[in-house]
Amino acid sequence: MSAFLYLIPSTIGDYEVKDVLPRKTLDVIQDLDEFIVENIRTSRRFLIKAGYTKSIDNIKFNLLDKHTSESELPGFLDSAKSGKSIGLISEAGCPCVADPGARVVALAHQAGIKVKPLTGPSSILLALMASGFNGQSFAFHGYLPIDTKQQQKRLKEIEKQARLNDQTQIFMEAPYRNNKMLRNIVMSLSEATMLCIASEITTDGEFIETKSIGLWKKNLPDCNKKNTVFLIFA
Amino acid sequence: MSAFLYLIPSTIGDYEVKDVLPRKTLDVIQDLDEFIVENIRTSRRFLIKAGYTKSIDNIKFNLLDKHTSESELPGFLDSAKSGKSIGLISEAGCPCVADPGARVVALAHQAGIKVKPLTGPSSILLALMASGFNGQSFAFHGYLPIDTKQQQKRLKEIEKQARLNDQTQIFMEAPYRNNKMLRNIVMSLSEATMLCIASEITTDGEFIETKSIGLWKKNLPDCNKKNTVFLIFA
Repeated sequence: MSAFLYLIPSTIGDYEVKDVLPRKTLDVIQDLDEFIVENIRTSRRFLIKAGYTKSIDNIKFNLLDKHTSESELPGFLDSAKSGKSIGLISEAGCPCVADPGARVVALAHQAGIKVKPLTGPSSILLALMASGFNGQSFAFHGYLPIDTKQQQKRLKEIEKQARLNDQTQIFMEAPYRNNKMLRNIVMSLSEATMLCIASEITTDGEFIETKSIGLWKKNLPDCNKKNTVFLIFA
Repeated sequence: MSAFLYLIPSTIGDYEVKDVLPRKTLDVIQDLDEFIVENIRTSRRFLIKAGYTKSIDNIKFNLLDKHTSESELPGFLDSAKSGKSIGLISEAGCPCVADPGARVVALAHQAGIKVKPLTGPSSILLALMASGFNGQSFAFHGYLPIDTKQQQKRLKEIEKQARLNDQTQIFMEAPYRNNKMLRNIVMSLSEATMLCIASEITTDGEFIETKSIGLWKKNLPDCNKKNTVFLIFA
């Protein structure tokens, strides 16, 4: 029996874990007792909601966040090297997509440990599906610059890429800066450019609408403190 | 009660539908009796495997494939306009990601019909998670040119984008041309560039490995007729 590094998605809204994670993902979680996580407290809560029946106190957690140094990472894979599978849990959505997990996955490949990605919700992918934009070609940019002038410049570059490459452009913003981002988007981009705003995906407050910048200008939604994915197509 | 256009993912391998689709996705399917599909026969089979208990014979299917003309599409949304929710089912993975579904989603937004994306497996996203490459910035290019010279040129452009933008580059190939693609990749790209080959994701034959081009050159896997996602990082 070889050991795996399982990549375990989490919920992205306030939905029940069992509503958005499929059976195979839930079954794998049951079999593990060592996890790499971004936050131990929320990961404990996640495991309980996912129906974890073994004693939470016996779980070994390795903490992987922005403060984790490179030198700590190889040790996180020791159990997998000696034949015991471990799990990498995301704080929200899919591990390694806009989160620090990729660092440890890269090490796993170097060490010859098999990596097994499991199915779960990703706000980026769900937003792309629901946008109505090109799904044959798309680019995700993470977070844009915070500075207003630089952000506007970047938005225009992204709009140009969308037009030249017929490519959907996807990005995010810190939730408390969403409304400033929206004002910058409608100020910077052409009236004909299409914008999809996808907020609070998979929650009861889900809001997903695609309109031209010209139409959005007349009535901008309030996205303050809402998890939002922005998509542009031109 | 307003009507929705639900985006329903399907399996991507030979796994049990209930292993990879979460409860909420399975529950929504139960409530619908009109679907937009790429292939009626496989969609019927999918619904049965997903535990659909109503009579399959009473389902209304609208066929959306490359032969469907623009003029047919608005009619596919008539039921949703008159208050009855409908589903858009993908042939494999998530609708509208590398499939023709986006055309009808764009029309739904224009008609003011709410679009609800549901969670399921996406080979592109699972491959990205498992690659160990940058998940904060990535681009998906669909299929590259088939012509050998043009393909090599495009591969080099993509490698340059990966290096300049610190951006993971993702693409696919028709399964029976995978081995030719692999030979072209190792011939065209720098020895130090990293390549992840992700084949048959979520199946028992799943193969996901990340190595430098230099290392791959010594031992190329046989990917003939295997569904494969290629990822490059430089």
